Amino acid sequence: MKTKVAIVGAAGYAGEELLRLLSRHPHVEIVCITSRSNAGQSIAKVFPKLADLDLQFVQPDTATIAESADAAFLALPHGLAAEYAVPLLKAGVKLLDISADFRLRSLDDYENYYGEPHPAPQLLDSAVYGLPEKNRSKLAHAALVACPGCYPTSIILPTAAVLAAGLASPQGITVCSMSGVSGAGRKAALPFLFAECNESVRPYNIVRHRHLPEIEQELADSAQTSVTINFIPHLVPVTRGIHSTIVLNAVDGVDPQRIQSALQDAYGDEPFVRVLPHGSLADTKNVTMTNSCEIGFDYDPRNQRIILSSAIDNLTKGASGQAIQCMNVMFGYPETTGLI
Amino acid sequence: MKTKVAIVGAAGYAGEELLRLLSRHPHVEIVCITSRSNAGQSIAKVFPKLADLDLQFVQPDTATIAESADAAFLALPHGLAAEYAVPLLKAGVKLLDISADFRLRSLDDYENYYGEPHPAPQLLDSAVYGLPEKNRSKLAHAALVACPGCYPTSIILPTAAVLAAGLASPQGITVCSMSGVSGAGRKAALPFLFAECNESVRPYNIVRHRHLPEIEQELADSAQTSVTINFIPHLVPVTRGIHSTIVLNAVDGVDPQRIQSALQDAYGDEPFVRVLPHGSLADTKNVTMTNSCEIGFDYDPRNQRIILSSAIDNLTKGASGQAIQCMNVMFGYPETTGLI
Amino acid sequence: MKTKVAIVGAAGYAGEELLRLLSRHPHVEIVCITSRSNAGQSIAKVFPKLADLDLQFVQPDTATIAESADAAFLALPHGLAAEYAVPLLKAGVKLLDISADFRLRSLDDYENYYGEPHPAPQLLDSAVYGLPEKNRSKLAHAALVACPGCYPTSIILPTAAVLAAGLASPQGITVCSMSGVSGAGRKAALPFLFAECNESVRPYNIVRHRHLPEIEQELADSAQTSVTINFIPHLVPVTRGIHSTIVLNAVDGVDPQRIQSALQDAYGDEPFVRVLPHGSLADTKNVTMTNSCEIGFDYDPRNQRIILSSAIDNLTKGASGQAIQCMNVMFGYPETTGLI
Amino acid sequence: MKTKVAIVGAAGYAGEELLRLLSRHPHVEIVCITSRSNAGQSIAKVFPKLADLDLQFVQPDTATIAESADAAFLALPHGLAAEYAVPLLKAGVKLLDISADFRLRSLDDYENYYGEPHPAPQLLDSAVYGLPEKNRSKLAHAALVACPGCYPTSIILPTAAVLAAGLASPQGITVCSMSGVSGAGRKAALPFLFAECNESVRPYNIVRHRHLPEIEQELADSAQTSVTINFIPHLVPVTRGIHSTIVLNAVDGVDPQRIQSALQDAYGDEPFVRVLPHGSLADTKNVTMTNSCEIGFDYDPRNQRIILSSAIDNLTKGASGQAIQCMNVMFGYPETTGLI
Repeated sequence: MKTKVAIVGAAGYAGEELLRLLSRHPHVEIVCITSRSNAGQSIAKVFPKLADLDLQFVQPDTATIAESADAAFLALPHGLAAEYAVPLLKAGVKLLDISADFRLRSLDDYENYYGEPHPAPQLLDSAVYGLPEKNRSKLAHAALVACPGCYPTSIILPTAAVLAAGLASPQGITVCSMSGVSGAGRKAALPFLFAECNESVRPYNIVRHRHLPEIEQELADSAQTSVTINFIPHLVPVTRGIHSTIVLNAVDGVDPQRIQSALQDAYGDEPFVRVLPHGSLADTKNVTMTNSCEIGFDYDPRNQRIILSSAIDNLTKGASGQAIQCMNVMFGYPETTGLI
Repeated sequence: MKTKVAIVGAAGYAGEELLRLLSRHPHVEIVCITSRSNAGQSIAKVFPKLADLDLQFVQPDTATIAESADAAFLALPHGLAAEYAVPLLKAGVKLLDISADFRLRSLDDYENYYGEPHPAPQLLDSAVYGLPEKNRSKLAHAALVACPGCYPTSIILPTAAVLAAGLASPQGITVCSMSGVSGAGRKAALPFLFAECNESVRPYNIVRHRHLPEIEQELADSAQTSVTINFIPHLVPVTRGIHSTIVLNAVDGVDPQRIQSALQDAYGDEPFVRVLPHGSLADTKNVTMTNSCEIGFDYDPRNQRIILSSAIDNLTKGASGQAIQCMNVMFGYPETTGLI
Repeated sequence: MKTKVAIVGAAGYAGEELLRLLSRHPHVEIVCITSRSNAGQSIAKVFPKLADLDLQFVQPDTATIAESADAAFLALPHGLAAEYAVPLLKAGVKLLDISADFRLRSLDDYENYYGEPHPAPQLLDSAVYGLPEKNRSKLAHAALVACPGCYPTSIILPTAAVLAAGLASPQGITVCSMSGVSGAGRKAALPFLFAECNESVRPYNIVRHRHLPEIEQELADSAQTSVTINFIPHLVPVTRGIHSTIVLNAVDGVDPQRIQSALQDAYGDEPFVRVLPHGSLADTKNVTMTNSCEIGFDYDPRNQRIILSSAIDNLTKGASGQAIQCMNVMFGYPETTGLI
Repeated sequence: MKTKVAIVGAAGYAGEELLRLLSRHPHVEIVCITSRSNAGQSIAKVFPKLADLDLQFVQPDTATIAESADAAFLALPHGLAAEYAVPLLKAGVKLLDISADFRLRSLDDYENYYGEPHPAPQLLDSAVYGLPEKNRSKLAHAALVACPGCYPTSIILPTAAVLAAGLASPQGITVCSMSGVSGAGRKAALPFLFAECNESVRPYNIVRHRHLPEIEQELADSAQTSVTINFIPHLVPVTRGIHSTIVLNAVDGVDPQRIQSALQDAYGDEPFVRVLPHGSLADTKNVTMTNSCEIGFDYDPRNQRIILSSAIDNLTKGASGQAIQCMNVMFGYPETTGLI
């Protein structure tokens, strides 16, 4: 008996990655894929490489989805996701939301960073932040999963372990992240043309990126106090991948061995986290098209600073792969099913 | 009457860039190009795009160079440059050294970072650090110019202005730099193959990069006190270009206008520094194959942090173009001659 | 006394390249730059790297252009260029049209390939095809120059020499060209996003590309008989550059030496054509940001085939640089002025 | 009971791809990986992304391999592969040779193209060319499989179908192929540095590429007469992928429908060949990291020419994936096992 899933907003890069992964998942049947702009077209037309999937995009309709699907992945812009979430949840469909709508616990933060009041505040309490390495047990009983953003996944995983172990100050953390261009989405826009991105390295949204409050919220849990981050995202000429370099002020007595132990203790048994030995650093190409997060680290005794380095594929562990990992937990499948 | 120049070590990327630029310089005649491994070969064979230059690589020989050249560019590995510098200077040849041999004023720093005693300590006092924006007047009378490294150029220019204006603390500075692969040189090595660099973002040498002491030395002049940097270089899939993001702790009362003024005051009249308006950030593709340094900035009031963003072409302003800019000053030519 | 020029359609890639090159041209003053979508904006805003140019985009208006400019470059879509050409020519402005409007001598070909009747047939007779290596003397007296397309430039230059020398059949010619993505223009469109082009190689428009009749028309002049080409363009993940590989059936008695001579005789004195020695082949990176066409060749005795290989920068020799080369001829400046 | 396999020469790109794929193959146990230069090192050290594999590289030793393995993949340079093949076959180990040693049936061709006498002519008769779509039944009983080269796979699959259907002349075929840089192997060499390949498109070995006789040999089977090809390989800035454009002279009466039928008839049931509808062309990014060959086509009535377009991942269907596909056939596993 397979789990029947719908993908709402299946014509973007996160949707394409969900299709790629779910089509090989042994316990899943894709019953519905929606796209406003591609409704009526076949998969073969929109994504030739997925031509084996005999599916057609349809207009999104919550009643139809609710009838046919046990679970739905929402790969939609923020704000819009909540519009679908309310009726689908009511109809008993389990939701994996890849948008930002249910990630923040604070309504003020949402309004502050997204520029409008939260569209469905009544659902926030029940939403579980979809980072299985952190919230595995809650996910098992969740009906609404707020999948983390790509930057937050790459930053929270290494940093949470170090803060939880008390090795660094929760203040004065600087994060430089570099994202591949697929992170900007599958939509026509001048700044993301090949000729504008090739041979280009540039920061953007460096003071108020929307992923910032989500990172600070989750890390506060690990540090058991508020955390302040300087988050500086950059765009680099890579299709898939995010690399984050995180610089923290170490407490006294830290050395490489203690950092290694903190990371190893946190993730030694995790199937999708690879902790490198001291002296090795993360590389995006080591995680391309996988659900892994690679973590390296070093310690600078001159400044008493811990440097963490992490790499994920922004479309897999940073979005669709992680959503499937969450789904596996929700539906009781082995967590690695259908994922590499 | 043209200035006769030799290029010692002309078969690497810095050498190729010197050839490209000097071949168009109206006051320069290239009289000698050396390369141990390419001696006997024509330019056309090694660099087809420079085939118009009717030159042949020869074995490096200081006597021959001294006879024919008024100035020599040393595009050699550290240690080796000094071996050539001693006899050439004695013979009255003016030197533009692109290696690291004469950048550091401290013999201890040299030994510490380069792993061997300094090869010609007697020359250090007379060497001028070849950053024209800082040392223009000294360069006019210099016989030995130590051209800055590529990372240092991209970091010192924006940071010096902010420290000199007293806007930020000289401690706790974090720098994330991203370099194109030509920075690794024109030599066969596995990690710099296309298939190893494409789709790859990775930090390297993150705790003790050799450019670090040079950056701290020069910034100490601006801050009039010692400066400590966390310098984290990354390799990104770009051929030419370095982007540096510099995060500083602001002193009280800083706002974007004051940062803009500090940068504008320092560089408003500089032909090769472009200060962007508040809200714009530097992009490597805006400086490709030019001698410009593009500088952007922002201020984060949440953390009281100044964020500087700079981009240069590592082979031009980061190496050969800057060396020519220095040569122009030394020989009394307009500083922008032959440069774009 | 400088030549005053207008650039009509200055916000695309050809316009940007015209601005980059003309801003360094010693005998040119840019008096007007137009852009419908960017009117009112400064150069610094649209192209930060050209911020030194103190110019503002304005709405295109032929009366204003005619008042201030001696010459105008039209970097417009086909069809639209003719609308501007008619009044500007009448007002005595010399025109360098980078669009396709005046390249074809046959009205049928135009209608066939561009899908609509020719917009200004009365001007066709006076238009000169702007390939200086072929039409230098005609250009000296031209008022309307139809600058060749990027593919045609890369194909006509090597092929014309071989056909004119009678070394190959004018029938059964196969051409595989590979274009960088800037060839698609500076406009937001899904297929040209970085994430769609990186790691992608794909042919397109393989049977009826619009550059085909122009290539056959010009080569017929060289062969003194009609020429038939199979032209297969591909898109490759390069920003700037076109490489063309041209395969011809050799007549009896051809050998590498005769091909070399034909190319050398045709282009030995040309400043912007570089003929490589037998055994070397053209490489786009050797011409990036230059106005050169690099040509290599080989001969396959098994099949009696001549293989020509050529590389240009599609924005320079393939568009804006060549237009300036034509302008230099028209206005009596040395042909290489302002070009590299 | 798993099949025990050895990978001889496991530290190159084909070896890395074998490791990636075989580590997920449900019926395979990797018992031995060899590398002369990396012997003694762990997988985690050489290929961090494969760190989950608890294996160490050892010096290649045929006796050890023969003791432990049922089958061996030879990912070695030509000439060397045969040295291992002789003793391993004698010891009963089934061989999948990714080198060129057993692909050619003609000893003269081998000596002609590889510059030395064939190292083990006695084995040629028993070798099966490892293209399952062509030789499936022979593979079922083979002990020595000569896996095709990457270019040949991309060219033979589309062309064989068209020639076998009698739609085109076996003479005068022109093939332009574009290869990603991983095709040059994982070895330090100047021409394959990132800075030499990025923004570069260039043909190479255009008259006598070593893959040529193999292509003509196999296509002669399909055409039932000798076939002559003009094969022009190019290097493009892509990591993985080969695109081939094949231009054939059509016989009278060909139209797009007949080409579509020929391709469909040949490959409609093949799990790893995707025939696109008329008007669509192959794109390397559609096959990245998969074992698929994507085939598109068009017909040019002006010249009566058929244009075929194909794309494969050079490391998967072009090398290691195809070798595993062959192994599946040899050992009676479903042909798609462990492959995507």
